[in-house]
Amino acid sequence: MNLMFLSSFKALFTPLLATNLESAASEVNIEVLTVNNVWMMLCIALVFIMHLGFACVEAGFTQSKNTVNILFKNTVTPAIGLVSYTIIGFNLMYPEFADGPGWFDFNGFFLNDFAGINYNQNYTYWTDFLFQAMFAATAATIVSGAVAERIKISGYFIFTIIFVGFVYPAIGSWKWGGGALDAMGFYDFAGSTLVHSVGGWGALAGIIVLGPRIGKYVNGKVIDKEGSSVPLATIGVFLLWFGWFGFNGGSVLSAEPRATSLVIMNTSLAAAAGSLGGFLMGYITFKRLDLGMVLNGTLAGLVGITAGADLMTPGLSLLIGFIAGMLVVLSAIGLDKLKLDDAVGAVSVHLTCGIFGTLAVGIFGQKAGWEQFVNQLIGVAACGAAAFGSAFIIFYVLKKTIGLRVSKEHEEQGLDSHEHGIRGYTITYE
Amino acid sequence: MNLMFLSSFKALFTPLLATNLESAASEVNIEVLTVNNVWMMLCIALVFIMHLGFACVEAGFTQSKNTVNILFKNTVTPAIGLVSYTIIGFNLMYPEFADGPGWFDFNGFFLNDFAGINYNQNYTYWTDFLFQAMFAATAATIVSGAVAERIKISGYFIFTIIFVGFVYPAIGSWKWGGGALDAMGFYDFAGSTLVHSVGGWGALAGIIVLGPRIGKYVNGKVIDKEGSSVPLATIGVFLLWFGWFGFNGGSVLSAEPRATSLVIMNTSLAAAAGSLGGFLMGYITFKRLDLGMVLNGTLAGLVGITAGADLMTPGLSLLIGFIAGMLVVLSAIGLDKLKLDDAVGAVSVHLTCGIFGTLAVGIFGQKAGWEQFVNQLIGVAACGAAAFGSAFIIFYVLKKTIGLRVSKEHEEQGLDSHEHGIRGYTITYE
Amino acid sequence: MNLMFLSSFKALFTPLLATNLESAASEVNIEVLTVNNVWMMLCIALVFIMHLGFACVEAGFTQSKNTVNILFKNTVTPAIGLVSYTIIGFNLMYPEFADGPGWFDFNGFFLNDFAGINYNQNYTYWTDFLFQAMFAATAATIVSGAVAERIKISGYFIFTIIFVGFVYPAIGSWKWGGGALDAMGFYDFAGSTLVHSVGGWGALAGIIVLGPRIGKYVNGKVIDKEGSSVPLATIGVFLLWFGWFGFNGGSVLSAEPRATSLVIMNTSLAAAAGSLGGFLMGYITFKRLDLGMVLNGTLAGLVGITAGADLMTPGLSLLIGFIAGMLVVLSAIGLDKLKLDDAVGAVSVHLTCGIFGTLAVGIFGQKAGWEQFVNQLIGVAACGAAAFGSAFIIFYVLKKTIGLRVSKEHEEQGLDSHEHGIRGYTITYE
Repeated sequence: MNLMFLSSFKALFTPLLATNLESAASEVNIEVLTVNNVWMMLCIALVFIMHLGFACVEAGFTQSKNTVNILFKNTVTPAIGLVSYTIIGFNLMYPEFADGPGWFDFNGFFLNDFAGINYNQNYTYWTDFLFQAMFAATAATIVSGAVAERIKISGYFIFTIIFVGFVYPAIGSWKWGGGALDAMGFYDFAGSTLVHSVGGWGALAGIIVLGPRIGKYVNGKVIDKEGSSVPLATIGVFLLWFGWFGFNGGSVLSAEPRATSLVIMNTSLAAAAGSLGGFLMGYITFKRLDLGMVLNGTLAGLVGITAGADLMTPGLSLLIGFIAGMLVVLSAIGLDKLKLDDAVGAVSVHLTCGIFGTLAVGIFGQKAGWEQFVNQLIGVAACGAAAFGSAFIIFYVLKKTIGLRVSKEHEEQGLDSHEHGIRGYTITYE
Repeated sequence: MNLMFLSSFKALFTPLLATNLESAASEVNIEVLTVNNVWMMLCIALVFIMHLGFACVEAGFTQSKNTVNILFKNTVTPAIGLVSYTIIGFNLMYPEFADGPGWFDFNGFFLNDFAGINYNQNYTYWTDFLFQAMFAATAATIVSGAVAERIKISGYFIFTIIFVGFVYPAIGSWKWGGGALDAMGFYDFAGSTLVHSVGGWGALAGIIVLGPRIGKYVNGKVIDKEGSSVPLATIGVFLLWFGWFGFNGGSVLSAEPRATSLVIMNTSLAAAAGSLGGFLMGYITFKRLDLGMVLNGTLAGLVGITAGADLMTPGLSLLIGFIAGMLVVLSAIGLDKLKLDDAVGAVSVHLTCGIFGTLAVGIFGQKAGWEQFVNQLIGVAACGAAAFGSAFIIFYVLKKTIGLRVSKEHEEQGLDSHEHGIRGYTITYE
Repeated sequence: MNLMFLSSFKALFTPLLATNLESAASEVNIEVLTVNNVWMMLCIALVFIMHLGFACVEAGFTQSKNTVNILFKNTVTPAIGLVSYTIIGFNLMYPEFADGPGWFDFNGFFLNDFAGINYNQNYTYWTDFLFQAMFAATAATIVSGAVAERIKISGYFIFTIIFVGFVYPAIGSWKWGGGALDAMGFYDFAGSTLVHSVGGWGALAGIIVLGPRIGKYVNGKVIDKEGSSVPLATIGVFLLWFGWFGFNGGSVLSAEPRATSLVIMNTSLAAAAGSLGGFLMGYITFKRLDLGMVLNGTLAGLVGITAGADLMTPGLSLLIGFIAGMLVVLSAIGLDKLKLDDAVGAVSVHLTCGIFGTLAVGIFGQKAGWEQFVNQLIGVAACGAAAFGSAFIIFYVLKKTIGLRVSKEHEEQGLDSHEHGIRGYTITYE
């Protein structure tokens, strides 16, 4: 009955090694560690709830016949993300490059033995892992929205495992793992590029390989598919903003008061200005009070400030958010011109504004300057090439092998009735 | 390409002034600052999510034909609130009155230079600003619910800019900015008056100027308009309670353990007792298990305890919450008798219970006494006169100029189809 | 007008006793207390939001004709829970057993005078009370889901008052109050047994006494009742996971970095693995991508890890979560075989996986061993006998006196139209 022998499989069940932890802990100020660690744990919870935010945005903005399918993907995605990041991702992303900064290294499957990489002054090993793991799954979730309403779920899950398990951590290691882009001077505070545009490139590859939904582009006209629930989408956007306090605030990697409060202030101001940017540009282009553009403008502001949230003044944050909020509208219109059908606007929010936010570090704020701008461009290009290239290959191979798109009949009737056997909403009164 | 020159516009883009911050920080205990600041940042996030709570309550309690309109207002309101509070509100509310406590002063547009008003022991300047900014927008949001389903969105937004940018901060300065009411001895811990009844007076002015919705009062009968989604309204109320941990808990302005834990305990007990008060009075008056009254009773308890959450015992908090929960039902009935049509009960929750909670400081708990009661009455009257008067004038001028109410046809068909072009809910299966 | 005399009723309105608090506080390190207390207050807010999670899960998984009834119960339940825990529960659960560990003791009505049981190093008396109070109501809420769609609300509320006021705290005292099970060596970190299986046993008793819903079991077939809103149920599950950061993380009863971060990591990994376990077993048994099983699998993983979240390695947490996720599917099938109709799967999630998680402490991790396993079995049996026995008697007496089940007509037409007079969803466009 005693299965503790399992923990002797070191790679599978890392022992807790209490003694090592004690001794390591004695080298740090435990009170300072405690408060920093509390902040990081709060940020973990906030980043976690972003997964609910994504689920709500995507289910709200897509058709009611596909609601269960969306929710299924968005519930399983963080589960896959956490498990694959435990098994492989974390040690691929933070590999302690053996011979100076490089492009690829790996520290072994599962979580490491704790000796040597134990406590630092700001958080425990477990806090570090969990914060990064909550980040990892977001990159895949970004993709799920864009490709919604016609992708086969099997193909999506295989893509997710590879993208979260390999592509995202490998690219992440270039900067946050101390790799080549970091050595070069590329700056990406909380992931406008490493998370958002990586996810956005994956989304772009997906919608190119999949093609648009049936009936989206007809005789040169763009036919909007009505989302099932605007309140649900609104809940999602607010939850994403809420979670971004942790996404950006936790990226300080401590509770240092000046940096954390500057970051969450800038984040909120950029979100607010993004709402107004989306409002204005939505009104200019569509001559209506377009809530979808306000909501995506809010997200655009958040993505836009993410790369330099610690470098900007309040005024610059308002400016960056406002530009991002206008940009997301133009990007959505541009994609439709190219007949690239993104079901929820994920490419415009995460890719377009992720690139803009990353470049903004070279244009505005404390690091602004030509040299930094070039570094930012190189980082955007390198990560973009890797993320788009990998995602395109994965999606293309899936398309040519198991098939990536559901049947025409299946798409028209809705994904829920076929694969899930229940409806998203059943509101009946006798 | 280098736009850093923008930061030389001091008033627009306050520089970060890292050196000043360092030197100021050296005068405080950085560890104590860190933990206090973490608490305040958590409270900021919690107050932020109250905006989602308001959005859900208002969209849930109003008709499905106006859902998008409600959500549009409630998404843009915090955006406008944050931006206008950055530009003008903060320095109007905390003006450091030049010649002793007064009624009006102003510290200049945009955020200040940090020298001199930098770190204190409990939070950074940015934390202070953002916490107050998140508060500011709530006053306008309270109004949005009451006037829903017939107000023109242009009029609403102009009102919001003026109300959040000028009226709310000016009144707030009288107490929290160290003005005349503060000097007199008026007490309002977290804003039963300064936030809730100020918003409630604005709401009352709005529904008086607008008049009731078509078909609300017919032949002496009150016709309830069915809300689109009771689950949505319930989500909203729970989120507001959740956010109130930060609204009241953060108003301690530090993480001091005794005060913060007393405050959040009292807040929760008042909310619970408010639910039961609404339950009981709803059953007595309507002879049914009225969920709307339970939900508004919960909010009533929260509003009621807000002025004195740091002064009460657990038992007194239960009592105050219970009374507020019963009061909100009676107030709703009274307003209907006067044909004052509040679409979501905002006046009853925020004004009636805000006044009650403020007076309760003079009746119950540590400050109870005749003198304090008179001070509370004066504060209620002064803030009420200013808030109601300003709001009435703004709404009245808007009515006589650009018009405040949508057309009859527009109101009957719903605001969504006219101004927003999409529906709130589209649930169809082929 | 001065009602302060009320506070002289010591049992009803505990005075704040500021002086005692000061002196007690001087014996602790105030900085350490502050950070620990901040963590505990955050956890209180997170456990609170679990009540919204339960409300959403239950309203989402049940029929639209009963939505208001569910929400009414789930809104009033935490209110009753907080009030009854204030009046009696807290002093029944933490009685400071007079003559060594026992099975029953009581420390008097309402909150205590603070002298002597004041501050410890980790949180204030009020924090302690509120954290435990937020826990208490969850046990009753678990019951509400199972018995939904046919129970009389009067009977449910009487049950809740007795269950939260007496049964839950009395059983809890055996372990967390330092009673007989604690002395024996029974281990239950955050309540797989003391909260979840206690609630689950109550639910089982309820559905046995009530019988299945009309039309659930027809001619040997199980007829699924379609839930009103899958997005709502999904929101609920994510909020429960979110809240579980506080439920388990707060059960460390301090912010000690190693323990808290280990616990929240293990909690999240078990939830993720539970999703995948539910996914897999749902696919095996039903041959479809069953979102209900993924969602209940997530909750199953959370319940399963709760008893030993501080004892497991990451790998073991994945294993325990995965097993729990598969178990919840088999349990649901088994209950249906026995014609035990659980409207939302609460018995399978909380009872089956609560028992499994408690026994897992004897099988896996730091305490694994035969002796511990026997202790766990004894604890499960003792708490189960007490919880099921009490609940059965309460429900049975209610059935034979005031009646426990609504009329056939009432059940078929839906509970909302009869007792509440409004519909959960009113989505109409002219």
